[in-house]
Amino acid sequence: MTRPHLLLGIDIGGTKTSVCLGGRDGAIHAARRLPTDPRRGPDDWLARVRHLADQVLAKAGRTLSDVDAVGLSCPGPMSVARGMMLGPCNLPGWDAVPAVDMLRGAFQRPTFINNDANAAALAEYLYGSRRGTPNLVYLTMSTGVGGGVVVDGRLVQGACDMAGEVGHFVLDPAGPPCLCGLRGCFEAFCGGLSVARRLQERIVRERRRTAILDEAGGDPERIDFRAILAAVRRDDPLALEEWDAFVERLAQGIGIVIMTLNPQAIVLGTIAIHAGDRLLGPVRERLPKYAWKTAIEACEIVPSALGEKIADLAALAVARTGVDEDAGRR
Amino acid sequence: MTRPHLLLGIDIGGTKTSVCLGGRDGAIHAARRLPTDPRRGPDDWLARVRHLADQVLAKAGRTLSDVDAVGLSCPGPMSVARGMMLGPCNLPGWDAVPAVDMLRGAFQRPTFINNDANAAALAEYLYGSRRGTPNLVYLTMSTGVGGGVVVDGRLVQGACDMAGEVGHFVLDPAGPPCLCGLRGCFEAFCGGLSVARRLQERIVRERRRTAILDEAGGDPERIDFRAILAAVRRDDPLALEEWDAFVERLAQGIGIVIMTLNPQAIVLGTIAIHAGDRLLGPVRERLPKYAWKTAIEACEIVPSALGEKIADLAALAVARTGVDEDAGRR
Repeated sequence: MTRPHLLLGIDIGGTKTSVCLGGRDGAIHAARRLPTDPRRGPDDWLARVRHLADQVLAKAGRTLSDVDAVGLSCPGPMSVARGMMLGPCNLPGWDAVPAVDMLRGAFQRPTFINNDANAAALAEYLYGSRRGTPNLVYLTMSTGVGGGVVVDGRLVQGACDMAGEVGHFVLDPAGPPCLCGLRGCFEAFCGGLSVARRLQERIVRERRRTAILDEAGGDPERIDFRAILAAVRRDDPLALEEWDAFVERLAQGIGIVIMTLNPQAIVLGTIAIHAGDRLLGPVRERLPKYAWKTAIEACEIVPSALGEKIADLAALAVARTGVDEDAGRR
Repeated sequence: MTRPHLLLGIDIGGTKTSVCLGGRDGAIHAARRLPTDPRRGPDDWLARVRHLADQVLAKAGRTLSDVDAVGLSCPGPMSVARGMMLGPCNLPGWDAVPAVDMLRGAFQRPTFINNDANAAALAEYLYGSRRGTPNLVYLTMSTGVGGGVVVDGRLVQGACDMAGEVGHFVLDPAGPPCLCGLRGCFEAFCGGLSVARRLQERIVRERRRTAILDEAGGDPERIDFRAILAAVRRDDPLALEEWDAFVERLAQGIGIVIMTLNPQAIVLGTIAIHAGDRLLGPVRERLPKYAWKTAIEACEIVPSALGEKIADLAALAVARTGVDEDAGRR
């Protein structure tokens, strides 16, 4: 009987960690979650992940000997070469965590790491609806705007694993402040958290009646992209106004990506999945202000088709790419 | 006696064409120029280039049999895969010129093509002061702003050979119009022609007395980057004001490149060579508004050290990279 060549994927976020077992083809055989609970520290987390992995393996009727490699998808900043997490803002105190060494020690398997947006771009390249597209950019469009860039079939890491941080290039130096410390960056205009906060403040300040508030159950604190989108669908004037500004800046940001990288595909996460053509139609209409026709025509702009599986697939993609590159198949 | 493995480089611009003979190491053995004279058409140009190449070879005491490959560096748009020039705006009427086939027919040697900014980036990667830097971006800072991107030691071409057109990403949709048809793109703010034109208009409109005009011999039409820079060195108020705006937008553009690609080096052409630290000092000071500290610290920003040889070296780099990639040494 041949070995099944499975991969173990670990996705760590500020609140949850997911552990999954899957094949090189992206088939997920089993997956489970636990709270990350960052205050208990990396060693405690490692012990719980190791335990959860046993459960995942048992559920799939497998053992660690069936696993070729372990992949960790984690928030940045981090160092791929040193296998370190370098103090992500949603994991306070995790300032120099040798995550790859820790996981390699626990699982005794080749272990690879990348940041979550890069890992998601790899997942799109390996498993997404535009898989195999040599030049592909993935943009998370969720609370923030993250990015991962694939060029000629390989992930672009850059000098210190910060390539693809397109969420923080500056669209307008006089624009709103961003949590990252810059002003007017792509995320400050188009990140879900930034958009929601500006709307909260405005609604409270102007005592505005708006369907956005209804969709948030009357609580300004609960305003998010889903509430805004639902209000857009109800033709709420404030929601339409905000949506228009959001679309315009999204087109500018995508235009910059197109002119810099000339990709065949840009795949958009979360909000684009929910909004579909309500978002992508208007973005395409406005793109000619922000990029050349030939480059726009060469680029498909699509919502991710990987849905909620993308985080697990991202971790598997990190494991698979690590194995492939170790085998000299770059 | 071993063959010398020489390369023939051809650089075509709107006014001049240069033909040079060089080694893989970037040593230029001989070079000559002729007027491009685009109205006489590609066939006439080819015959004159073929003739000039004979003179270049004779001058170096070589024959075509010593030449491994021919490289053509030309203005875009163009297709690397099809070896075609696709109607560059400074070669009117050259709409679908099969340049690679033509040159291969004339020289009977493997022939490769790339656009001039990409070719210059390759020249920096192979022969420049930061040669071998795996992630390097070259920005021409001359009449326009062109760009070429090297990632992990390979040129990024993109879907239709338009990668690296960073001169035309939009810094401000309400900014000045660009010759490319967009508004507020990097080149509209920082291209020498755009800067000079805005200054000409302003000086004439405001009947302004300024050292810029003195440096241009009293003729507003002759205002260019050199005149502006000379006036900056004389502390002319108008020149300082324009320089300040130029530096600010240059920092924004470079910030976008840094956040998107996280390169180890950005090499700047023409105006940066002339201005040196008068430009790069202030740009570095302002960068923290436009990019993250870690990514800025990872990136050297330097003027090109290749000087006027860059166009010839760019053409040689296209030939050399073509041969290397054909040999599977990607």
